[in-house]
Amino acid sequence: MRGSVLRGRRMVYRDDLPEPVPGPGQVLVAVRACGICGSDLHFARHGEDVLAAGRQMEGLPAAGPGVDLSSDVFMGHEFSAEVLEAGPADARSNGGPDTDVPAPGTLVTSVPVLLSPTGLEMIVYSNTTFGGYAERMVLSARLLLPVPNGLDARRAALTEPMAVGLHAVNKSNVTPGETVLVVGCGPIGIAIIAALRLRGVETIVASDFSARRRKLATTVGAHRTVDPATESPFDGTSPAVVFEAVGAPGVIDDVLRRAPSGTRLVVAGVCMQPDTVHPFYAIAKEINVQFVFGYGADEFAASLHSIAEGEIDVTPMITGEVGLPDVGAAFDELSDPDAHCKILVTP
Amino acid sequence: MRGSVLRGRRMVYRDDLPEPVPGPGQVLVAVRACGICGSDLHFARHGEDVLAAGRQMEGLPAAGPGVDLSSDVFMGHEFSAEVLEAGPADARSNGGPDTDVPAPGTLVTSVPVLLSPTGLEMIVYSNTTFGGYAERMVLSARLLLPVPNGLDARRAALTEPMAVGLHAVNKSNVTPGETVLVVGCGPIGIAIIAALRLRGVETIVASDFSARRRKLATTVGAHRTVDPATESPFDGTSPAVVFEAVGAPGVIDDVLRRAPSGTRLVVAGVCMQPDTVHPFYAIAKEINVQFVFGYGADEFAASLHSIAEGEIDVTPMITGEVGLPDVGAAFDELSDPDAHCKILVTP
Repeated sequence: MRGSVLRGRRMVYRDDLPEPVPGPGQVLVAVRACGICGSDLHFARHGEDVLAAGRQMEGLPAAGPGVDLSSDVFMGHEFSAEVLEAGPADARSNGGPDTDVPAPGTLVTSVPVLLSPTGLEMIVYSNTTFGGYAERMVLSARLLLPVPNGLDARRAALTEPMAVGLHAVNKSNVTPGETVLVVGCGPIGIAIIAALRLRGVETIVASDFSARRRKLATTVGAHRTVDPATESPFDGTSPAVVFEAVGAPGVIDDVLRRAPSGTRLVVAGVCMQPDTVHPFYAIAKEINVQFVFGYGADEFAASLHSIAEGEIDVTPMITGEVGLPDVGAAFDELSDPDAHCKILVTP
Repeated sequence: MRGSVLRGRRMVYRDDLPEPVPGPGQVLVAVRACGICGSDLHFARHGEDVLAAGRQMEGLPAAGPGVDLSSDVFMGHEFSAEVLEAGPADARSNGGPDTDVPAPGTLVTSVPVLLSPTGLEMIVYSNTTFGGYAERMVLSARLLLPVPNGLDARRAALTEPMAVGLHAVNKSNVTPGETVLVVGCGPIGIAIIAALRLRGVETIVASDFSARRRKLATTVGAHRTVDPATESPFDGTSPAVVFEAVGAPGVIDDVLRRAPSGTRLVVAGVCMQPDTVHPFYAIAKEINVQFVFGYGADEFAASLHSIAEGEIDVTPMITGEVGLPDVGAAFDELSDPDAHCKILVTP
């Protein structure tokens, strides 16, 4: 099978991958489109740091086996795919057929979680479980969502990043009358803006250094955009809620320093490095910081629904498309924030 | 007049201070007791940094004139006092008497805010407005609270720090059935524990390196105490809410790293230095961080009521008492966390 794998900080094309085999309750699918996520770029460059941070952290159950960076790593968690065939019946179905597997040929998507008799594994970084940067992969029958309304595979693959934005907005408890500032208009910021607009928020200000990203922010629903190189996003705006969607060191502290008293800051950008903050800024202004991550299965389904019903148009977000041999080049290209929003891999 | 002033990082006794003069709507009072706050100790040592942080911060209205550290600075914001005489009638009373000024001799307390025709000033650090480390000071007639129920001046002076704890607990939205961890059992941590107990929280775990402070935590209401030198406060405890009441660099990150998924962290300790955090810990566990500061006038009044009615016994918190000439020595003594909780200055 063909696919692109992470080997020593680079995405490498392979045409000799073993065929994935669905286990009980699992389904073999053919990947139709898979978005490249910023977290994949970061893992490719700083995988050792990501794994070390995970090991140091307490308070979370382990989700799957560890990752060995000296072996090939499979990635790709923003996918749509076509059902090929179901694995053996799940033991929980008492030997009967898995009635809930969509027919072969059905276009589906799924939260990137693989259920197996031994537990669950995130489909994100793995030495053994294929992700969406491959011709075929295995998904969980019980988690499959058929793509409704004739939505095409490319836009269906945006379900996952749009769910991230929806979840961030849900966790913010924002109300339509509140002024909102979105700092950073990469894919997560854009997904947040789209979700805010869908919720009816009437004043959405978006900030990004890139003119192209600011234009995209306007397209998906921002009412005003700011270039932070020439203007503070807090000048003339007194946001009740600020979304941090950059994920780079220094951004959180800058918001704490400038934001008005009582601001609710939602941190949706995933900063993997240590970061310096001045707690005093946040203390003196009683700022609330809600860190967010991922989404619930209900939010994932709602995101798919919104895209399929045309409530959110993700078309402008798709700025590139590559085949499996060119994933490495696409990773390189995405390091320039002005060039792209979302590149899809279409095997 | 006698008082103790900050001069070049040291508290210096003076017997040549000018007499304070109450303006319109203000009242001259004789200080009966004033607690030494950790923030005063910090300001004495790092005043330049505190003022610089304030200048860098946007989003807050200025509360009073700036402070010149090359001149004497007046401090002391946890006071009880006896009414001496009212200033001229407030212009707002149309020349009539200020009917709401308690009679001379009445024991009062007040939020540390001075109202004047030109605005309001925090009674916290000032080159011109006396605080509680002096024989006499000026307060705002409209903000005076008579001390009820025969409560003595010493315990009444604890109203302010107890209000800080009450406010932190109110902002946490904690419910009685939730498990709570309080990290740090200095005066703020102790005030938080007392407020949690008063609210009916059934599982309060308190953590501090000092045996004396752990004992005090138990006295005011902690159900279990932990010495973090020998045991992680998260071992065997899965708190829903964590109060950070240390205010030193590194503590927030340690909580983010160890706390369970979904923890609500309330930062009540005032860390004035830059601090390093790993946002990823908080992101992966969707931690909510509520920074808190101060209290409302209603919380201040509720705190006074709780102490006066005996709902909270602050007596064990008062571990020392000094006169005005010995404020400098008390500041030195308070740098040892094992020796004291709250030292009162009684002019």
